[in-house]
Amino acid sequence: MATLKKKLTVRLHETDAAGILFFASQFLYVHDAYEELLQLIGLPVASMLRDEPFILPIVHAEAQYFRPLHVGDEITVIVQVGSIGKSSFVLVFDLFAADDKPVGKAKTVHVAVSKQTQNKIALPEKLQRALKAFQSAP
Amino acid sequence: MATLKKKLTVRLHETDAAGILFFASQFLYVHDAYEELLQLIGLPVASMLRDEPFILPIVHAEAQYFRPLHVGDEITVIVQVGSIGKSSFVLVFDLFAADDKPVGKAKTVHVAVSKQTQNKIALPEKLQRALKAFQSAP
Amino acid sequence: MATLKKKLTVRLHETDAAGILFFASQFLYVHDAYEELLQLIGLPVASMLRDEPFILPIVHAEAQYFRPLHVGDEITVIVQVGSIGKSSFVLVFDLFAADDKPVGKAKTVHVAVSKQTQNKIALPEKLQRALKAFQSAP
Amino acid sequence: MATLKKKLTVRLHETDAAGILFFASQFLYVHDAYEELLQLIGLPVASMLRDEPFILPIVHAEAQYFRPLHVGDEITVIVQVGSIGKSSFVLVFDLFAADDKPVGKAKTVHVAVSKQTQNKIALPEKLQRALKAFQSAP
Repeated sequence: MATLKKKLTVRLHETDAAGILFFASQFLYVHDAYEELLQLIGLPVASMLRDEPFILPIVHAEAQYFRPLHVGDEITVIVQVGSIGKSSFVLVFDLFAADDKPVGKAKTVHVAVSKQTQNKIALPEKLQRALKAFQSAP
Repeated sequence: MATLKKKLTVRLHETDAAGILFFASQFLYVHDAYEELLQLIGLPVASMLRDEPFILPIVHAEAQYFRPLHVGDEITVIVQVGSIGKSSFVLVFDLFAADDKPVGKAKTVHVAVSKQTQNKIALPEKLQRALKAFQSAP
Repeated sequence: MATLKKKLTVRLHETDAAGILFFASQFLYVHDAYEELLQLIGLPVASMLRDEPFILPIVHAEAQYFRPLHVGDEITVIVQVGSIGKSSFVLVFDLFAADDKPVGKAKTVHVAVSKQTQNKIALPEKLQRALKAFQSAP
Repeated sequence: MATLKKKLTVRLHETDAAGILFFASQFLYVHDAYEELLQLIGLPVASMLRDEPFILPIVHAEAQYFRPLHVGDEITVIVQVGSIGKSSFVLVFDLFAADDKPVGKAKTVHVAVSKQTQNKIALPEKLQRALKAFQSAP
């Protein structure tokens, strides 16, 4: 089962006055990794927004936080494609510190929405194929 | 069961190039409402950071998104205090559009952590009392 | 000379681990005030993005910071319309703390750009009139 | 005169509903590059916040924007150390697109402030030396 691995460093603007990563910043990290996944499978966000008749908004997001992160921490985000449904797909993210200890998890559920009608549509076949190909790659 | 109600307007920087609210921005909205709740119950974030021996990091967060939001949309966030445990408490957020239709939900779970040891501690009594008083207010 | 006044409270996610407002957050404050100005003069961002053939990107921005701001601080942003040129206009922002002491300043320069050609265009007359009317209001 | 070069990709959450990079996001890019500079010269933000008696808040920031940037664009930020004064220093940033055309500029002015007194102090010698060494490196 293929995964995408993204490395990042916690930046000052992602922390808050409690001295640690602001919880919503972890969602930025996982979305950045998702954008890299889209690029990797041949559907970069830029061309989706420009050329495709659909967008892929998130309808559910969740995250766990196992330990506080600090500015300068080096984090690895691992993305996996979870279940792929008729009109939605799931991404699963695991975050690790430089010592390989897990520091957080996240899950996002995406649906396909027609740009024109703003209604939910079936997952475009091109996308479905690309997600499945990634998922089953060694 | 008391609730806190916060009104806000979707701002351009909270949207993205897909033309709609970026999903993580909804977490900013609910955290802003949480900060107003802390203020209301007599434990404003500023004095917690300055004077108290603990902070209240989020260990779990989740959100649902029922419809896309756009810049200029007027949103109401309703906060309720959910279960209050020995060392954690839950906040529940409902978001409504100007037409009173629900547009999203969120939940955050907070724990108390000692500033000094960085370890989880029992919910400080002052906080527990304040949350319960708010919860049971008419 | 008319001004628009916007009140806000510094939120945790706008601060950083140095314990103070992250400098770029002040630019969010002034842009939020600008969006209120556009609303007030009858050209809300939402309808500009939906209905008008132009957008108004910022080509220059600057800010001064007179003292560190902290979570919970109550800030007032005062917006004035500065010079209005053939193809650009200037906004001037002054920020004050609850004690009425100035805490910061900012300036943004906006140009009109055609959505279709992406080229700079003359300031649309409707916008120019609205800015001048606001500027010269008592 | 040494420079630090940082490459980045424009992410969806840094854009807005006008379809382009939100202007304040450019300030995040330059601050991220500044954090890499501090790391490079041996004064990483994390250890400054933890171990040093001072912080280096920004008292002036400015930016120019030469063309709109879009999600997926690959940007290079070049940082130079500008003038180094008794109690302040200047950083100068140039941003380039993948085609090597300049897309923006920025400048930030930093002062040293005592954590304890919150007053401005002379630039700590260690910092001054490190900035000068970087500046005059080939």
